[in-house]
Amino acid sequence: MALSDCVMIELPKISDPRGNLSFVESFNHIPFEIKRVYYLYDVPGGECRGGHAHKELQQLIIAMNGSFDVFLDDGLIKKSFTLNRSYKGLYVSKMVWRELKNFTSGAVCVVLASEPYSEEDYYRNYEEFIVNVKKLYLSDTFFQV
Amino acid sequence: MALSDCVMIELPKISDPRGNLSFVESFNHIPFEIKRVYYLYDVPGGECRGGHAHKELQQLIIAMNGSFDVFLDDGLIKKSFTLNRSYKGLYVSKMVWRELKNFTSGAVCVVLASEPYSEEDYYRNYEEFIVNVKKLYLSDTFFQV
Repeated sequence: MALSDCVMIELPKISDPRGNLSFVESFNHIPFEIKRVYYLYDVPGGECRGGHAHKELQQLIIAMNGSFDVFLDDGLIKKSFTLNRSYKGLYVSKMVWRELKNFTSGAVCVVLASEPYSEEDYYRNYEEFIVNVKKLYLSDTFFQV
Repeated sequence: MALSDCVMIELPKISDPRGNLSFVESFNHIPFEIKRVYYLYDVPGGECRGGHAHKELQQLIIAMNGSFDVFLDDGLIKKSFTLNRSYKGLYVSKMVWRELKNFTSGAVCVVLASEPYSEEDYYRNYEEFIVNVKKLYLSDTFFQV
């Protein structure tokens, strides 16, 4: 559940002159069941999204078209990733604040999520997120995970 | 499992000046669990894909960028659909032959599938598909489904 768990995953790529194909299977390329797929499109160039963390939800973020940057923050460390290849996905664990920035015009961001939508699973206030993530760092539970 | 089951599904669309968002949840907007997500990209304009049917797999096909046409055939009826909106998905049931044609340059086709990949689930030969789908039409099982 820390930033060290958040990694770029290279997905299978089947190259073909008629177009390339990549795929992701639940519990195979990602450590969760895909319960929800959501996607951002018609994003104006240079736009920003995100600005939240999840209490439980894990996800894989893919730049299906164009590119954008993902800024992650687990309360201790910050790290950014540029997503610009359809066959790579960024795994983001729970309890990590994320912001998506620098969308190119026409970029499409597809997210495979481990949970259906639940507003209760969100931290939308950064200070509240920091208070709660620090509580976890200080609890025994965190070090047992 | 016939062509009459294959319909365009209008997905939720959350409009926002920073970009639009749509989503699909297993057993909510589609009648199956999403076990696999695959996608076609870098498809040259005018290209064709598909040319197969599935014995069991159901799927939702979304034009995440650009557009293409999907031609369906259940052995009795043929029908075509143009996919050109990110917030619409075409549900394709099992035992339906499909071909994807007329890709625009840069089109991205995302497919949410009910099963992990299994070559045994494919009919890749049209004549073999027709023989087997006709067997189903003549069986009691088909009419009970």
